[in-house]
Amino acid sequence: MVHGAVRITMDNSAQAKRPEVETGDETGAGQSRTALVMTTIRQRIAGRSLTPGAKLPSVRSLAASLKVSVSTVVDAYDRLVAEGAITSRPGSGFYVANQTAPLALSEIGPKLDRAVDPFWVSRQSLEAAENDLKPGCGWLPPSWLPEDAIRRSLRTLSRGDATALSDYGPPLGLSPLRRLISRRMAEHGIEAPPNQIMLTESGTQAIDLLCRFLLETGDTVLIDDPCYFNFQALLRAHRAKIVSVPYTPNGPDLDLFAKTLAEHRPRLYITNSGIHNPTGATLSPVTAHRVLKLAEQFSLTIIEDDIFADFEHVAAPRLAAFDGLDRVIHIGSFSKTLSASARCGFIAAKPDWIEGLTDLKIATTFGGGRLAAELVHDVLSDGGYRKHLDVLRARLSRATVEVSGKLQKLGITPWIEPQAGMFLWCRLPDGLDAGEIARAALAKNIVLAPGNVFSASQSFGGFMRFNVSQSLDDRLFDMLREALARR
Amino acid sequence: MVHGAVRITMDNSAQAKRPEVETGDETGAGQSRTALVMTTIRQRIAGRSLTPGAKLPSVRSLAASLKVSVSTVVDAYDRLVAEGAITSRPGSGFYVANQTAPLALSEIGPKLDRAVDPFWVSRQSLEAAENDLKPGCGWLPPSWLPEDAIRRSLRTLSRGDATALSDYGPPLGLSPLRRLISRRMAEHGIEAPPNQIMLTESGTQAIDLLCRFLLETGDTVLIDDPCYFNFQALLRAHRAKIVSVPYTPNGPDLDLFAKTLAEHRPRLYITNSGIHNPTGATLSPVTAHRVLKLAEQFSLTIIEDDIFADFEHVAAPRLAAFDGLDRVIHIGSFSKTLSASARCGFIAAKPDWIEGLTDLKIATTFGGGRLAAELVHDVLSDGGYRKHLDVLRARLSRATVEVSGKLQKLGITPWIEPQAGMFLWCRLPDGLDAGEIARAALAKNIVLAPGNVFSASQSFGGFMRFNVSQSLDDRLFDMLREALARR
Repeated sequence: MVHGAVRITMDNSAQAKRPEVETGDETGAGQSRTALVMTTIRQRIAGRSLTPGAKLPSVRSLAASLKVSVSTVVDAYDRLVAEGAITSRPGSGFYVANQTAPLALSEIGPKLDRAVDPFWVSRQSLEAAENDLKPGCGWLPPSWLPEDAIRRSLRTLSRGDATALSDYGPPLGLSPLRRLISRRMAEHGIEAPPNQIMLTESGTQAIDLLCRFLLETGDTVLIDDPCYFNFQALLRAHRAKIVSVPYTPNGPDLDLFAKTLAEHRPRLYITNSGIHNPTGATLSPVTAHRVLKLAEQFSLTIIEDDIFADFEHVAAPRLAAFDGLDRVIHIGSFSKTLSASARCGFIAAKPDWIEGLTDLKIATTFGGGRLAAELVHDVLSDGGYRKHLDVLRARLSRATVEVSGKLQKLGITPWIEPQAGMFLWCRLPDGLDAGEIARAALAKNIVLAPGNVFSASQSFGGFMRFNVSQSLDDRLFDMLREALARR
Repeated sequence: MVHGAVRITMDNSAQAKRPEVETGDETGAGQSRTALVMTTIRQRIAGRSLTPGAKLPSVRSLAASLKVSVSTVVDAYDRLVAEGAITSRPGSGFYVANQTAPLALSEIGPKLDRAVDPFWVSRQSLEAAENDLKPGCGWLPPSWLPEDAIRRSLRTLSRGDATALSDYGPPLGLSPLRRLISRRMAEHGIEAPPNQIMLTESGTQAIDLLCRFLLETGDTVLIDDPCYFNFQALLRAHRAKIVSVPYTPNGPDLDLFAKTLAEHRPRLYITNSGIHNPTGATLSPVTAHRVLKLAEQFSLTIIEDDIFADFEHVAAPRLAAFDGLDRVIHIGSFSKTLSASARCGFIAAKPDWIEGLTDLKIATTFGGGRLAAELVHDVLSDGGYRKHLDVLRARLSRATVEVSGKLQKLGITPWIEPQAGMFLWCRLPDGLDAGEIARAALAKNIVLAPGNVFSASQSFGGFMRFNVSQSLDDRLFDMLREALARR
């Protein structure tokens, strides 16, 4: 298994970026004078008061203003040249290098232990070898997905229209699929005509496009605590300020929700409807109604991520159904119940937003996966898909009971008994640290999802999310038993 | 045909956003006092001196500072409430609405006539009906693409491994395809081991990810004049400052290139290698070498977009081959020669950048189209693909001669005789405006690409790009003849 090696490489490269002088040049406690000058210049560059290409203060003037010797400034400038932050042009002076550091997502926001970093579970799950166990991942094993229907649809496509195989799709995405999604949404009480639906390449890309469309750098975004870890990763990429509200079995804690809106005035709230990730909770109608009233009062826009819709036995309320796509944007994808290999998601929103989003989609991805959309449309149109869902839901229910029982025997307790879906959000026995157990598990090729990966407030160190469909192998419980015994 | 209608809707909605008061409340020339107050507040909101949620000055204090009556300010605030820019809280005052305007790409940068807006050709080409002519689009008709090979590969996939059909791909993308791309790049003299190659969902998405990775808001980016119009659209989405340098038949004008680097210190240069879009020009080895020397001198990073590689009869020099992926990033896709429906592109860059880009890719798209990558890999591995390219290149050469001849008869002159590819960059007879002709053509369901769509300096109003593979229908020449006669 390659994970350890990959991580080590990353850590090394991160360390290599740190300039040696911060410890190397010190004689006692605190920074040396040279280091002080370097820090001053670095801060001016980081804060953009010195922009790339700008000329630095002359050695003499900086020495005078910082009350250090000329040789200290010369030394500091030389070291900054050596590390590539500035360049020297003989006879002219020193200039800020153009080579500003590229975006390092893992360095935005509070620095986290890699084991509870939002990227951690994603990377480990995606990099896992075929025989690794992935109870921490967020998707079903291939054998749980409608394999035969996909194979049939590929054969249908292979005999189909050449345009479908080779050409770009229309800007909004394949019309028949948008019509079908519109009808499916109507079943959840959401009115969205096909021209208010734009296809994307995934649910993640849908949220990303919306963040680009709605957020300015530094805007505040509200998420649930806990919530799907990639929301945090995505918001880091947008350099948004993150605030969070505890999630209860019926939705967000309403008092704290109201208080947070009043205090932080977030621009956006990103949440799951239907089945909440990671808790498996469902929004109650009363909570949904109050959330929308508060959203209206504080001019909040809501992105409702509904990717688990097809797992539900009984449909939970949708914010978009109450709101009519006014301040709620509804997104979804087919990665969880159909295929994660054929990328296809969608955004349903008000017409003028769809117009602006289409320009943004063309500018940033151009055509948008027509072949995947054709495949998804074909599978969804097949009568077999509903049967597949029936079988899948029953299988998940059985797996939930089985895994829940085995975990409880070990003293690992589900927070709630979820109505549907693949996740069990569990409390570990007191005093156990989920991050530590996840690290130990990784050494045995088992990818777990420790609670704090999902938590902006980092208050779920004693929790863990289990994907029941990926938790049926006894190796998992052997490992957990061992880890619990060790404490 | 629906284009006209779509455009009209857009124009209407843009107008609807303009507050009526700017004309409605005037008694003479210039703005009314109410309008003046509204403009003042709007500018403070736009300039972020009044941020969302902030309290507005009291009516009395604003009236005093602007030297207008209290009733004028009351009137202005009421109108701003009506248009949603501010909200009123009885007993408390007026506040900036949280609902800041979402990103409108078409409103970033200088306002262009829609006919020469970079989005125009994209939207019209993607929205065109099957029987419309698209000499202005940037891709081949489906019948020119390896239809049989794609059908074969779909059948192969339909019999293949379930994981390929249903599961997410690894973070960097499908290994066998990355190895194959690595070998293909080696044929162009570019050394890129598979772990320095990351798959993306398209060439456009590759550039988008790189811009997100490398640019800060307000950074300057250098492009060719003319260049692929979507570079401009994409850079608008990143709110980058755009500078451009004229493109000559051998690459960028070197004197102006050097001058622009010295003056504007761009962070990035985005260009096509191989065959240049829209001119069909190829970089000479001497120019490539000088461009790289200047890039080094001015710490410039270069994105080399190589999506036309497979059209070449003889390989032109690649910047990445000389540079060894140090300051050059090499990107490509298979949309032009294999399929635009199966989205798949790639980025080749230095290892630490690939590491950061992978985090960014996961955060913003998660898995990344495995099914498309499997299909592309299967088609590329098929011996038939090289034969397809041989046939395609010969077909394009013949079409180029034919279309060039017909255009010249009309007095429309190719700027150069391109060595390969699908584009003819043509000068119209003196005094003709390409934008006007494109507008007239659209009324006849013909999508053209007027020169200024490609030009940051807007200096190609007398030029037009023809895609020879989409220019073989006599209706095009009839229409052009008519347009030319009309002058």
